[in-house]
Amino acid sequence: MQAEIISVGNEILLGHIVNTNATHISQRLRELGIEVCYHISVGDKAKKLSSVLKEALGRSDIVITTGGLGPTVDDITIETISKVIKKKLVFKKKIYKKIMDHFDHRKIEMPPINRRQAYIPGGSKDLANPVGTAPGVIIEVNGKVLIALPGVPAEMMPMMADVINYLRDRYPSKATIESRIIKVVGLPESATCEKVQDLLKTEGDVTVGIYPHTAYVDLKINAKARDKKAAYRLIDPIEKKIRSRLGNFIFGTNDETLEGVVGELLATAKLTICVAESCTGGLIADRLTNVAGSSKYFTMAYVAYSNRAKISQLGVAKKAIERYGAVSSHVAIAMARGIKRIAKTDLALGVTGIAGPTGATKTKPIGLVYIALSTPADETWRRFNFIGDRLTIKLRTSQAALDMVRRYLKEKSSE
Amino acid sequence: MQAEIISVGNEILLGHIVNTNATHISQRLRELGIEVCYHISVGDKAKKLSSVLKEALGRSDIVITTGGLGPTVDDITIETISKVIKKKLVFKKKIYKKIMDHFDHRKIEMPPINRRQAYIPGGSKDLANPVGTAPGVIIEVNGKVLIALPGVPAEMMPMMADVINYLRDRYPSKATIESRIIKVVGLPESATCEKVQDLLKTEGDVTVGIYPHTAYVDLKINAKARDKKAAYRLIDPIEKKIRSRLGNFIFGTNDETLEGVVGELLATAKLTICVAESCTGGLIADRLTNVAGSSKYFTMAYVAYSNRAKISQLGVAKKAIERYGAVSSHVAIAMARGIKRIAKTDLALGVTGIAGPTGATKTKPIGLVYIALSTPADETWRRFNFIGDRLTIKLRTSQAALDMVRRYLKEKSSE
Repeated sequence: MQAEIISVGNEILLGHIVNTNATHISQRLRELGIEVCYHISVGDKAKKLSSVLKEALGRSDIVITTGGLGPTVDDITIETISKVIKKKLVFKKKIYKKIMDHFDHRKIEMPPINRRQAYIPGGSKDLANPVGTAPGVIIEVNGKVLIALPGVPAEMMPMMADVINYLRDRYPSKATIESRIIKVVGLPESATCEKVQDLLKTEGDVTVGIYPHTAYVDLKINAKARDKKAAYRLIDPIEKKIRSRLGNFIFGTNDETLEGVVGELLATAKLTICVAESCTGGLIADRLTNVAGSSKYFTMAYVAYSNRAKISQLGVAKKAIERYGAVSSHVAIAMARGIKRIAKTDLALGVTGIAGPTGATKTKPIGLVYIALSTPADETWRRFNFIGDRLTIKLRTSQAALDMVRRYLKEKSSE
Repeated sequence: MQAEIISVGNEILLGHIVNTNATHISQRLRELGIEVCYHISVGDKAKKLSSVLKEALGRSDIVITTGGLGPTVDDITIETISKVIKKKLVFKKKIYKKIMDHFDHRKIEMPPINRRQAYIPGGSKDLANPVGTAPGVIIEVNGKVLIALPGVPAEMMPMMADVINYLRDRYPSKATIESRIIKVVGLPESATCEKVQDLLKTEGDVTVGIYPHTAYVDLKINAKARDKKAAYRLIDPIEKKIRSRLGNFIFGTNDETLEGVVGELLATAKLTICVAESCTGGLIADRLTNVAGSSKYFTMAYVAYSNRAKISQLGVAKKAIERYGAVSSHVAIAMARGIKRIAKTDLALGVTGIAGPTGATKTKPIGLVYIALSTPADETWRRFNFIGDRLTIKLRTSQAALDMVRRYLKEKSSE
């Protein structure tokens, strides 16, 4: 069973947009155990699309196109498909009514040009578009399945759910591919790799890959099996091995975020937190409040960018700044203490550092960061030397700060 | 002149990563006026890669591959190229030395496996990799140019600069394609489209496209001409027309950000700003401090998430919250006043709203936001009804707040 994705559109070949459609469709097909063998992008040109379609139908069992379903003459996918598979276009009243309803609903008169979208190749099944006017099309050609979807991701993605249902019925005995992502923080890619190198695997029914991001590393386990349960039986022992190697460097799985994990730990422990930020400029508070329900444990943050703000608002001693510098463990601790006194929370973070590109001194390079965490029982601080541009250093600092909170809460919960 | 990009790697077809390499290479080739006709992604399988390579060399003048240059047996690009073009692999001492230096520099012993990367097809020119160990390769095959680059974007991108220089020398008379992006804020895509519909154009030497983002809209003008100057002569009059239609809704061009534009206006006017945030949770301060040098005009921000924080820290009247609610123009203004009194800045923003998914009431839906701006001369506030999930509402709110500051500063600077 081999699938192929054809993306139609000049804007892809011009580099105006990144082809995320092919990525999304590949991910969804993997759920059914269907292997994708090619992604092809081609412009809005009938001759080229036609030859690509013929080649794809010659070598693959399932061919999915995206793009070129709009109402204008530039949108050539449906017409080209009709010619390639030799099925004339047929006007569908039902589709036409839906297109008219779409405009009625928005109290706009339907441009006559949109009538074109009600034509689909004879013998094909149409797929409703919940967002736009272009219907999708599924058609069987000599035992192969050809599917045309719109190029706008917000339209394509819900329609892809219908495609998955269709293919699941069409190929009922197919295997499934399940994935689990193990998320690692506080350990660079190379060090993570060293610890799990022997488990990495790119071929076969079970694969294990390593995917570095700016402030965390993903380890991804994929397993192909006859059903979900069987796939997880392959995944579980590998996850266990990875966990035994990486321990507390693992902060979550799949689409969990560090701020989400920290939020859950805070809510469970019924503890509150506040933040005093300098170099991160509000990013830690922003991330904490990205979590729905964060008002349960987060009440306030203070971004003290200037020395004056640190002194007047957080009560950092002017002498401490003069003696140790604004970027020092002393000031980080004083910032945490200051905001905690004001906010009356259980925990408080104080963060100070040099995000660059300027501000470095002989003894204090760009990327030098101090993070202090004040808890009901104690105060701790850590020094970091981050590498990267301004935004990278801000992100890595926010990650390290949230990770200090996570580690504290994890330890506390296991007491 | 037709180019084609072949991306090699299972991780693309599995949907693990988005193929941004093809996008980047397309953008760079456009600078030389080279048209990209196909993007192909194929797995780490010699047979499939071999047939894709043969087809590409048959129909395109320039073929660029990415990926599959690593040291492991899964990395098959160089070997497959060598077989397809019938040029034996040759061991290159110079490359080998570079690979050894790479490991020496990091004080790591070179794994023997990396020796493999010192082999390239006979007659090819190698491209230095400034970041990793895999060299790139350029080889001429029957008048066509075949180029192999690594798949890691951080390695590929600097090497692509060398490729551009090579191709510029190789095809000296080529035309150039230049682009200009006009950035629009405060006007939805549909309304933007209405105003410039007759200028949009997808075919020909000059194209104009509209690209919506979560909190702004891009209008992109591309022009193909014999040189930069000629291209800009095509672009300029269209930009002028767009500007006359959209006026102050345009906040910048190309890669400018709204926070960067606001920062420049503040620095030029020698004015300072502070922020009191509720629903945005620190995002506005985070964005302001993403700009290098922001400490010139930004000194502090306060994230007052709870009512208590608004009252105790910003001096918002408890009665105002009781009478009008925390999400009200009264509270937004009081927040701006409160932080301004503390920070002693020229400008202050106060932002309060409901980011969701909970917190809505009968009269106050999710997405309701009040933004107040306090200036030396006056106080203004605006109400917004944003649509979207929590993060979208936070982003759109931060955008609207920064845009209020931009509009104030623009007006002031033209006085």
